[in-house]
Amino acid sequence: MIATPPLDLAAEKELLCELLRLFYQLGWCTGTGGGLSSKVGDGYLMAPSGVAKERVRPDELFELDAAFEVTNLERLRNKKISECQPLFRAIYERTDAGCVIHTHSVELVAALARNGDRPRIGWEGLEMVKGIRGARYPDRHELPVIPNTPREAQLTGSLIAALEELPAHAHAVCVRGHGAYIWGPDVMAAKRHAEVYEWLCRYTNLTA
Amino acid sequence: MIATPPLDLAAEKELLCELLRLFYQLGWCTGTGGGLSSKVGDGYLMAPSGVAKERVRPDELFELDAAFEVTNLERLRNKKISECQPLFRAIYERTDAGCVIHTHSVELVAALARNGDRPRIGWEGLEMVKGIRGARYPDRHELPVIPNTPREAQLTGSLIAALEELPAHAHAVCVRGHGAYIWGPDVMAAKRHAEVYEWLCRYTNLTA
Amino acid sequence: MIATPPLDLAAEKELLCELLRLFYQLGWCTGTGGGLSSKVGDGYLMAPSGVAKERVRPDELFELDAAFEVTNLERLRNKKISECQPLFRAIYERTDAGCVIHTHSVELVAALARNGDRPRIGWEGLEMVKGIRGARYPDRHELPVIPNTPREAQLTGSLIAALEELPAHAHAVCVRGHGAYIWGPDVMAAKRHAEVYEWLCRYTNLTA
Amino acid sequence: MIATPPLDLAAEKELLCELLRLFYQLGWCTGTGGGLSSKVGDGYLMAPSGVAKERVRPDELFELDAAFEVTNLERLRNKKISECQPLFRAIYERTDAGCVIHTHSVELVAALARNGDRPRIGWEGLEMVKGIRGARYPDRHELPVIPNTPREAQLTGSLIAALEELPAHAHAVCVRGHGAYIWGPDVMAAKRHAEVYEWLCRYTNLTA
Repeated sequence: MIATPPLDLAAEKELLCELLRLFYQLGWCTGTGGGLSSKVGDGYLMAPSGVAKERVRPDELFELDAAFEVTNLERLRNKKISECQPLFRAIYERTDAGCVIHTHSVELVAALARNGDRPRIGWEGLEMVKGIRGARYPDRHELPVIPNTPREAQLTGSLIAALEELPAHAHAVCVRGHGAYIWGPDVMAAKRHAEVYEWLCRYTNLTA
Repeated sequence: MIATPPLDLAAEKELLCELLRLFYQLGWCTGTGGGLSSKVGDGYLMAPSGVAKERVRPDELFELDAAFEVTNLERLRNKKISECQPLFRAIYERTDAGCVIHTHSVELVAALARNGDRPRIGWEGLEMVKGIRGARYPDRHELPVIPNTPREAQLTGSLIAALEELPAHAHAVCVRGHGAYIWGPDVMAAKRHAEVYEWLCRYTNLTA
Repeated sequence: MIATPPLDLAAEKELLCELLRLFYQLGWCTGTGGGLSSKVGDGYLMAPSGVAKERVRPDELFELDAAFEVTNLERLRNKKISECQPLFRAIYERTDAGCVIHTHSVELVAALARNGDRPRIGWEGLEMVKGIRGARYPDRHELPVIPNTPREAQLTGSLIAALEELPAHAHAVCVRGHGAYIWGPDVMAAKRHAEVYEWLCRYTNLTA
Repeated sequence: MIATPPLDLAAEKELLCELLRLFYQLGWCTGTGGGLSSKVGDGYLMAPSGVAKERVRPDELFELDAAFEVTNLERLRNKKISECQPLFRAIYERTDAGCVIHTHSVELVAALARNGDRPRIGWEGLEMVKGIRGARYPDRHELPVIPNTPREAQLTGSLIAALEELPAHAHAVCVRGHGAYIWGPDVMAAKRHAEVYEWLCRYTNLTA
C-alpha cells in the first residue's frame, strides 16, 4: 500500500518498484522495455535499463543529483541506467513533471499505427480525458507524435521540439513504432495519466 | 472473503474496498475514474473522488446520513466525495438500489460507440441476461443511453428522466462516451449486474 | 497447490473452489454464471447456483449420492443447487466424465455466433486439439452446438441427443448464445479440455 | 524473486517453476501445452509433458546429462518428459541457447495464420525488436515458419533446417498452427525474447 506524500526516499523507491510490477502486468514494460523515473527532493530516481522491470529491487534504482549525475554508481556497478535518461531530463527541465513513465504499451503503439503519419493523435467526446490534469470534456485532447530513431538518446531533439509546442494539457509525447513518455506532477498523477492514455488507445483499437 | 449479509459497517467498508481493487483489475476504474456506493442502514457509503480507486482504504470512504449529508467530513478533510453523489442519490431515491457502481469500462464505452446515437442499447438471445434480476432468456434486454455532459452533476436531469422510463428489468443507465451507472438491491447483486453488462458489451465488440 | 489423486473429499472440495476462483478470473463464470461438478467415489459434488462463483467455500458445495440426491441439504438450507444438475447428470450417465465444467466464456459464445446456425463448430490443423483426449493433429475436431432454452433444465433433451451422436473425441456440447458443458475423466482433465476449447474459440475470434 | 546467476540447481528449478506459472497466466501453456528447458552446468532441465504447467513443482523437473539422458528417472516414474526433448536438443546443439521456451500463445498462432503460407514472418520499424539480442531498429526482423507435423518429434528435421538458415538475430522458430520455440543465452534472456515476440504478434493482430 502506498503512503501519503511526502514520501521518504526508501518509501519512494518501494513505490516505484511496486509500480514497475504493475506496469509489467499491464503490458507496458515487457521484454525489458519501458522505464520509470521520479523526482525526489533536488534529485531523481531512475530505473535500470535492459532488465526485467517487474523484478527491479529498490536498491537497484539509480540516484541522480540536481545536475543529473548518478550518485550511487559504485553500488550499481553491474547495472546500466535507463537509456531514457536524456529524455527524462528534457521533460523534467521543460514541464512541471515530478515523475515520468516510459511505456511500450502495444495498445498505444497499435493506436499510433492506425493514426498513420499524422504529427498528432487525438480523442474527443470522451469523459476519460478528465483524468488528465486540466483537460475537459468534451474538448479534443491531442498528443504530439514524433518519429522513432535508432538510438533512444537520438529522440532528444524532436522530443524537445514537441515539448516546446505541446497541445493544451498534453502530458505525453508519443513515439511512432515505439511507445510514449508520459508525465505528471507526482508519481500517482503520472500513473493516472498513463492509465488514461492506455484507456484512450484501447478505445481507438476497439472502435476501429 | 465476503461475509454473509447483514454486514456491519466495518465489514461493508472492507467489502467496498475489496471490490474497488477488483474493479480496477477489470479496467472499470483506472485513471481514478469510476465510483462505488452502498446503502448501510439508513445511510450510505461513497468512495472518494479523484484518487486511485484500487488504493482506497476503509477509513477513506465517506459516510452519509439519510439526507445524503456527509457525517465524517472532519476525518476526511483532504478527500473529495465522488462527483457522482447526486447521481447515486437519484438512483437510490427512484429504484430499489442498495448499491451503485459507476464504471468507466472501455468495453462498455466502445459498445456504446458502435451503437451510434440510439437512445437505447440492447441484447437478445443471450443466456447471460439471466444474471440481471428479472430478465429472462431469450427476451431482449435494453438499457437507456443518455448523452454526456461537461460536469458529472449535470447528468442528473437526464439520468432521472431515464430512470422514470426504464426498460423492463434494466439495472443500469449508460452515458455515451463516459460509462454507466449500474445498481442492484445489494452490493453483490450490483457486482453481478456489472459483470453481466461487461460480458454483454464484450460480446458486442467481439462479434462486431 | 493441487494434490495427486485420489483426493479425499476435503481436498477435492478445496480443488473445486480453487478452480472456481481461476475460472472467474478467466471470465468463465462472471455474473454468477457457469458451474462445476465432479464425481467422488459413488457420489458427486456440485457448486451452488446464483452465487458469486469465485467466493464459494468448500462447505457450500452440494454433496449428491449415486442416485443424484442431495445428502447435505440440511446444512445448505439457504443455497440452491446448480440449475445444471440434470445436465451434469446426463453427461455423467452417458460419458466417462469424472468432472463437468459449465462455462459462460464470452470468447466461446462469440465464436458460436460467428458460426451461425450450424449444428457443429470445428477446428482443424491446430496443435492445441491434442490437449483433448484422443484428438489428433491435423484432424478436424468438432463439437455439437444445440440451441438454448428459457430454462436450463429444458436443455436436457437436446443435450442427450447430442451426447448420443457425439463427434469423435468431442468432450463438450456447446449451447448457442449461452456457453458450453465440458467434461473429462477427472477434474484436471476437464480443466485441460476447457482451456483447449477456450484457446480454439479465441483463435476463431482473433482470425475472423 | 529471482537470484543473480549463476544459480544453483535448486534455485534454477524454482525459477523455471515460477516462469511456468507466469507463462500459464500469459496464456502460453494452457491446456498442458507448451514447455520449458534450461541448461545447468553440463546438463539440462526439462519440464514434464502432459501436465498442468502452472502446477509443476521443482522436484518434477527432469534432469538430463550432457548426452541428453535423463538422470533422475527413478524419482519421476509417473511423469513423462516433454515431447519437445529432441527439439530442445537440436536448438542447444546449434545455437548459443541456455534456455528454450516452447509457447502455444494464441496471439502468436493467430499472427502466423494471418501470414498465410509464407516461410517467414517479420516486423519492421518497431522499437520492441531491440529486446532481441543483436536486433536493431528500424531493421526488419524475421523468423522462420515451418509446417506442423502429427508428432512433435517429427518437427526435428525441418527445425534443424530452419536453424541452419536462420535470419539475422532470429531467436525463435515458429510452427504454423502450433506455436514457437524461443531461446536465449540464459533463462531471463529467453523470457525477454518470448515477451518481445508475443508483443510483436499482438501488434500484428491489433493492426490487422
